[in-house]
Amino acid sequence: MDVQLENLKFDANGLIPAIVQDAGSNEVLMMAWMNRDSLEKTVSTGKTHFFSRSRNKLWLKGESSGHVQHVKSIRTDCDKDTLLILVEQVGAACHDGYYSCFYREHQLDGDWKVVGRKVFEPEKVYKK
Amino acid sequence: MDVQLENLKFDANGLIPAIVQDAGSNEVLMMAWMNRDSLEKTVSTGKTHFFSRSRNKLWLKGESSGHVQHVKSIRTDCDKDTLLILVEQVGAACHDGYYSCFYREHQLDGDWKVVGRKVFEPEKVYKK
Repeated sequence: MDVQLENLKFDANGLIPAIVQDAGSNEVLMMAWMNRDSLEKTVSTGKTHFFSRSRNKLWLKGESSGHVQHVKSIRTDCDKDTLLILVEQVGAACHDGYYSCFYREHQLDGDWKVVGRKVFEPEKVYKK
Repeated sequence: MDVQLENLKFDANGLIPAIVQDAGSNEVLMMAWMNRDSLEKTVSTGKTHFFSRSRNKLWLKGESSGHVQHVKSIRTDCDKDTLLILVEQVGAACHDGYYSCFYREHQLDGDWKVVGRKVFEPEKVYKK
């Protein structure tokens, strides 16, 4: 991994949060975690890879659905402890079928309101 | 705190990552952490408040600089373990003087390249 990326601040578990943003519309699509391996793989393949804390393994975004993300730009913040990845999204980012994972909005009363746009039906994409 | 927010998934330290996005341009401005208190204060005052892990205390964004963020929308993702806060940013988000904290871009060779726009000179805003 190059020195720019080596100098990022990974946390005590070796992870760094990665925000994924649509390079065209600027929509925020998702947030996930990367370790050094997944970041290296993201750079070398041009497709986002993350580290799953629950499954304790590296994953290619879109490995089941085909909804991969082509990386256009990798940015970091002033503290170098967070990444912002600009991508071209194939299909949709969210496994619930919405273009962005952030499809629910807080309301002053009532429940979370769905404000995102649905792009696919999960049961048709994730066949058992 | 209302039941929508109570149902969010805070981590083992009682924290949830909050991505802050410009409600007008959709620029991603920063990422910081919230605990229940800072989220409650964000909702009740309409200005973003975060929890500083290094200083172990709640802080109002802009408390030193005056660069507060007026909240327009609070969203959450499919897993309800990350927040996306849409704001109207006063001044600039970054203490380094850039409008967004994500002002550096990874290069295939050389060092991180500054791609963000500088809005103020930190030494003039943060007077000692």
